[in-house]
Amino acid sequence: MQVTSTTVVTYLKGLQERIMLSVQKLDGGLLTRDEWRKDPSETLQGYGVTQILENGPVFERAGCGFSHVSGPNLPPSATQHRGELKGAPFEAMGVSLVFHPRNPYVPTVHMNVRMLIAKPANAAPVAWFGGGMDLTPYYGFEEDAVHFHENCRQSLAPFGVDLYPKFKKWCDEYFYLKHRAEPRGVGGIFFDDFNELGADKSFEMMQSVGDHFLGAYMPIVERRKELPYGEQQRAHQLYRRGRYVEFNLVWDRGTHFGLQSGGRTESILLSMPPLVSWSYQLKPSPGSEEERLYKDFLIHKEWIA
Amino acid sequence: MQVTSTTVVTYLKGLQERIMLSVQKLDGGLLTRDEWRKDPSETLQGYGVTQILENGPVFERAGCGFSHVSGPNLPPSATQHRGELKGAPFEAMGVSLVFHPRNPYVPTVHMNVRMLIAKPANAAPVAWFGGGMDLTPYYGFEEDAVHFHENCRQSLAPFGVDLYPKFKKWCDEYFYLKHRAEPRGVGGIFFDDFNELGADKSFEMMQSVGDHFLGAYMPIVERRKELPYGEQQRAHQLYRRGRYVEFNLVWDRGTHFGLQSGGRTESILLSMPPLVSWSYQLKPSPGSEEERLYKDFLIHKEWIA
Repeated sequence: MQVTSTTVVTYLKGLQERIMLSVQKLDGGLLTRDEWRKDPSETLQGYGVTQILENGPVFERAGCGFSHVSGPNLPPSATQHRGELKGAPFEAMGVSLVFHPRNPYVPTVHMNVRMLIAKPANAAPVAWFGGGMDLTPYYGFEEDAVHFHENCRQSLAPFGVDLYPKFKKWCDEYFYLKHRAEPRGVGGIFFDDFNELGADKSFEMMQSVGDHFLGAYMPIVERRKELPYGEQQRAHQLYRRGRYVEFNLVWDRGTHFGLQSGGRTESILLSMPPLVSWSYQLKPSPGSEEERLYKDFLIHKEWIA
Repeated sequence: MQVTSTTVVTYLKGLQERIMLSVQKLDGGLLTRDEWRKDPSETLQGYGVTQILENGPVFERAGCGFSHVSGPNLPPSATQHRGELKGAPFEAMGVSLVFHPRNPYVPTVHMNVRMLIAKPANAAPVAWFGGGMDLTPYYGFEEDAVHFHENCRQSLAPFGVDLYPKFKKWCDEYFYLKHRAEPRGVGGIFFDDFNELGADKSFEMMQSVGDHFLGAYMPIVERRKELPYGEQQRAHQLYRRGRYVEFNLVWDRGTHFGLQSGGRTESILLSMPPLVSWSYQLKPSPGSEEERLYKDFLIHKEWIA
């Protein structure tokens, strides 16, 4: 098999459909589907499909975007390690999602899989892959963190036992709020600029990550979504969602760069929580469940042996 | 008179006291006062006073920070236009505030006044000033925008009739969300890197801006704070507050740079709204008051003749 953008696009669209069908089935709320296309006057050309469920009983905001764009020149940020491809025409395609559940005992989740192809004038095209998934709980359950990481490891196992530890560490480093000295959540896996297995096998790995998402996350939603909660848990969730906003707008290279360089705002900001609060120097009460989140979960830790 | 950091600090602390006393008197809620000091191990040394009123009847979150810091080397961002001062020891002091009212008919406001002094080894110290104020309504009242701009103009009038038009334009350009192609609000004035009147007169101008803040804003609060509103107005306010977050975390150089370079997070994020929402492609209904905000107020416009 030879990886082509058509093959990858077909996989990505199917993945988006499968995931959002599953979300819709679990939630029962109304799924909005929005197809968009870049204006022909713009340098970046392309189209995308946004699927989003807002204000559902289980998911307060669950957005998943597919996009396929192409441009005349690779942006500098994409060629940091590949000087020879500087300025080459390129294609980029991916699926990205963030789900914000309503129940504070259900964690927020993020998943992304993407491929970039550079097409230099005097050489064969080069493809590389990126993605991962990570979990952000508001209340800590060790069982959930272990389950999620176990699925992350399984998704990578067929491609090399060294990958999970490497991508787990990369995730810890990437999803870190330096201004709070706090990890965003309990981590997961993150990889970028990956083609060391060759294009075909690397694409298989990317597919495996995408395919493991539902199994990694949905069982956690199932077992937490009916837990009773009150105002205190809700307030804590809204406050902690502020960290998600801070990370995405201040530190996440894709988000920040996308907004500053003319990306499609509403697609980029699909990741924003539906409702968020800020409060001055809010500290959890000693011995509380909220404090346990900070002490036992928002730390860099090996969740599976 | 000779401007010294002691003189400026005395003015700034007094300004903070006056403003927050006025806020507390109007609101009746509990004002928190928090004094902080940088850890001696840090490169940047200094202290500050945060005053914040949260969850009051009039102000949902009204934060005002004073700080006075010094460092061994001017950061590159401060010496863009002053190459000869590169790396000189410096002192920076200022007052910065953002008030988020509860009633959606009362606009959010931002005000800042600051001085930076560079102390090169082989030359006399150089001081320059910055600041301004700008208004962000959720519902447009021409009368309020005019009143605010009129006070801005009056604050600058004794120092040159050219200043208001110049600083008004600067404000329009600075408080602009490029990713939304939207101004943050109805503007006001903004200036930076200012000492063209000489240190003494420039300091007087900065004081005049600070001294005009209460007169520019509080009458607007007084006349709007009792207006009845419902869920629709509240939802619109929470949604529009998202733009404030987007601007501050993505575009505001002070906020972004501060968070990325180890500033005091809780002081920098005093500007965050207490409660914020995001929603996919929310559009105001044709002919609604919400649409009028976008069409007639979130535009660059001369508010006073």
